[in-house]
Amino acid sequence: MISRMKAAAHLLEKLIAIVGHKHVLSRDEELIPYECDGLSAYRVKPMLVVLPADSEQVQAVVRCCHQYQTPIVARGAGTGLSGGALPLQNGVLLSLARLNQILQIDVVNTRARVQPGVRNLAVSEAARPHGLYYAPDPSSQIACSIGGNVAENAGGVHCLKYGLTVNNLLALKVITVDGELLELGGGALDSAGLDLLSLMTGSEGMLGIVVEITLRLLPLPQQTRTLMASFEQLQQAGNAVADIIASGIIPAGLEIMDRLSIQAAEDFIHAGYPTDAAAILLCDLDGTAADVETDYRQLMQTLQNSGSSEIRQAHSGEERQRMWAGRKAAFPAVGRISPDYYCMDGTIPRKYLGEILQHIDSLSQHYKLRVANVFHAGDGNLHPLILYDANQPGELQHAEEFGGKILELCVRYGGSITGEHGVGMEKINQMCVQFSSDELNCFHELKSAFDPDGLLNPGKAIPTLVRCAEFGAMHVHNGQLAHPELERF
Amino acid sequence: MISRMKAAAHLLEKLIAIVGHKHVLSRDEELIPYECDGLSAYRVKPMLVVLPADSEQVQAVVRCCHQYQTPIVARGAGTGLSGGALPLQNGVLLSLARLNQILQIDVVNTRARVQPGVRNLAVSEAARPHGLYYAPDPSSQIACSIGGNVAENAGGVHCLKYGLTVNNLLALKVITVDGELLELGGGALDSAGLDLLSLMTGSEGMLGIVVEITLRLLPLPQQTRTLMASFEQLQQAGNAVADIIASGIIPAGLEIMDRLSIQAAEDFIHAGYPTDAAAILLCDLDGTAADVETDYRQLMQTLQNSGSSEIRQAHSGEERQRMWAGRKAAFPAVGRISPDYYCMDGTIPRKYLGEILQHIDSLSQHYKLRVANVFHAGDGNLHPLILYDANQPGELQHAEEFGGKILELCVRYGGSITGEHGVGMEKINQMCVQFSSDELNCFHELKSAFDPDGLLNPGKAIPTLVRCAEFGAMHVHNGQLAHPELERF
Repeated sequence: MISRMKAAAHLLEKLIAIVGHKHVLSRDEELIPYECDGLSAYRVKPMLVVLPADSEQVQAVVRCCHQYQTPIVARGAGTGLSGGALPLQNGVLLSLARLNQILQIDVVNTRARVQPGVRNLAVSEAARPHGLYYAPDPSSQIACSIGGNVAENAGGVHCLKYGLTVNNLLALKVITVDGELLELGGGALDSAGLDLLSLMTGSEGMLGIVVEITLRLLPLPQQTRTLMASFEQLQQAGNAVADIIASGIIPAGLEIMDRLSIQAAEDFIHAGYPTDAAAILLCDLDGTAADVETDYRQLMQTLQNSGSSEIRQAHSGEERQRMWAGRKAAFPAVGRISPDYYCMDGTIPRKYLGEILQHIDSLSQHYKLRVANVFHAGDGNLHPLILYDANQPGELQHAEEFGGKILELCVRYGGSITGEHGVGMEKINQMCVQFSSDELNCFHELKSAFDPDGLLNPGKAIPTLVRCAEFGAMHVHNGQLAHPELERF
Repeated sequence: MISRMKAAAHLLEKLIAIVGHKHVLSRDEELIPYECDGLSAYRVKPMLVVLPADSEQVQAVVRCCHQYQTPIVARGAGTGLSGGALPLQNGVLLSLARLNQILQIDVVNTRARVQPGVRNLAVSEAARPHGLYYAPDPSSQIACSIGGNVAENAGGVHCLKYGLTVNNLLALKVITVDGELLELGGGALDSAGLDLLSLMTGSEGMLGIVVEITLRLLPLPQQTRTLMASFEQLQQAGNAVADIIASGIIPAGLEIMDRLSIQAAEDFIHAGYPTDAAAILLCDLDGTAADVETDYRQLMQTLQNSGSSEIRQAHSGEERQRMWAGRKAAFPAVGRISPDYYCMDGTIPRKYLGEILQHIDSLSQHYKLRVANVFHAGDGNLHPLILYDANQPGELQHAEEFGGKILELCVRYGGSITGEHGVGMEKINQMCVQFSSDELNCFHELKSAFDPDGLLNPGKAIPTLVRCAEFGAMHVHNGQLAHPELERF
């Protein structure tokens, strides 16, 4: 015990020597702001918070923690929704907030070199004067950091057309657990050797610490046109999405909001949404004037055949902004009508949208908890918000169980337990449903190839087989095996 | 010794029991056809060739080899150009040629589920009646197999616009070295856990044996327009490519041929190429009629400003075919004017095209060996063909040294030693130039996480550090460090 305290004291000394007294936090009141990320239902106070200034300091900090065998949890802006940056009581929380420089906007090669602490939106703001932007746009893009986006392979409204973070990355600089610097990817289309760039992306801080990111920038679209279609049944909206994609056009954004989220957003933002509609579909078309015109004709035809009760087009930039403002503020808006809500993030093959939404509805009745559906319909990425009150005994547990069921449904329909928020702490049990023990073993072997002592964000994302046994989940493969728990629905 | 022969005899017996007598080849005359792949300069006769009928047999064969600790080299169609399927004298060559079924063309979800032995072109042929096709199109697409495409992360003319194999994959079924079946990827946009799908793609048979592949299909483009521009200087053509991409359009194909390859192709195919030109640029535009028209106007303007001496447009399907026939037959055409040639596959950032082509020219003079340049200019993927005569003592060695220098140049300019052909045996030394020892160590750790005994295609793609020391290469990072050997040029 005493020797452990001694070791901790030595570690503290050494870390202060690296980053300076001001940048090592150890007092309770300093630690509290770091005890959770966007998944605030889970809270743990870290042993220490360290804020290095540059990649050399990150390297030294990691070497030091490695020497003292102290676990490290990396943190970007702390906006993550799956608890990936949840601290460990006996661990160091490594905040990358001070690595916040845009190192280069390379206009000729249309790429940006940035530090992990740079905000997602700041990249597009810096690129705009050159007629460029960075496509992936999580709802939290005002606040969330590029480093966090890489750790979670973040998505967003534009990912339907422009891909997830991994599809918009060119290179990474990564510090390994023993303090080595790796340079992954590069200027070329393909890179020799194993694809470590993709492996690192979405690995939730478990394989290394990202200290520099090279992003692909895209030319700003010549034109963007926004449409809103209203429906009297949620399922009609779901089917319209499938029809639009089947018709061969890929909108820049294709989002569904159901009645509850429409009403919440309207009360909050006054976006001019039809509060009597069962669902609205928001659709962005972008590209050259010619592209947009062609897609527009196709889209209108599909919407008219989809039973939409009203189709509205934004005629000005302001109108576009307003139409999207409601969607972008949907989460906080729902926050206003319920003391607490739990945001899910499952994905399913598009064609099952209608069916799944019905399942969720019956689950909602079963658990007696309201659900607001706001989601990236185009890529089958659901975001059901489960409304609950943490002060009502048992409601949080109910909400979590309900959420778990939704994710298991997604897997059963051949989907995934996460579209863009990551696994973190939140979905670690559902990993047992999605993957076989052989597959999980493979994850563990990879993890220990990078981090033999398990010091990098231990206990997140990849469940132990023991945990799976306790959770008692059966492995569901593309819905082949019926999960007994699911039979009820 | 005797015990080793005994073991081999037992292995042979067991393999026959699994796949049947007809499908285990052990006699010299049966083995010779398998002693090399497309890189015919390297030849090794395998101990045995095994041809399983299905994934269950693959699983049993791998388990069996694992039990006898016998190395396995997997082989698709044997068209690979980097020696990735070069057999081992003490190893089993596992041919996947009999796993040649297209299992499903899923029109609604625009995907195809195929076995690894299916030919690349066969997928598009099966999809065409449904208005779909598979985009990646290696020059060898008539013969090469999808399994091989996955192993090498194959590219092709269309990859500039539609991405490499890894960008067109949805799921893989893989047999691990101890015979476990992994299912990677799936229906959803993102998949939870580590990105094993990307890691497996391009891993050259060193992490597992792919037994089923789910491919993304694309709708056939409404329209395709083909243009050919002639130039009096090779460098002008290189610069034109950079200008075209910079102008914001992404052609479906953008290829350069230099004088020597133009003349060789013209003598062979009579494509109607201008044999007096220093270079031609072949360009495909595809998409909706509107897209093509917009891009066409932009392209013509750029070409007119690029100093092109002649711009020709194909006015019929036949004319299009003819224009491309010369490019597609360029390799065999060059084969007609030289007893042997050595095909390189480096990539560089587009803007250096002109510069690099000059370097290659001076290297050509230094080594007194002719070079024909035929390449995917749009994505900076060079394919210099070094002409030599294997019967002239020392010429092969010269050609290989010359080739090595070209690849080191690519790395020095921030590119990569392979664009689409893989590393295999051919470029294993240049891996020492591209990657630091820390990075190579990371590859080795990953490899042993999947294959601790090193039984899957050992000795390919990832060099040992000892080998790098012997090769004496210094690590070049984005051209930062000047390689002494390169200073001469």
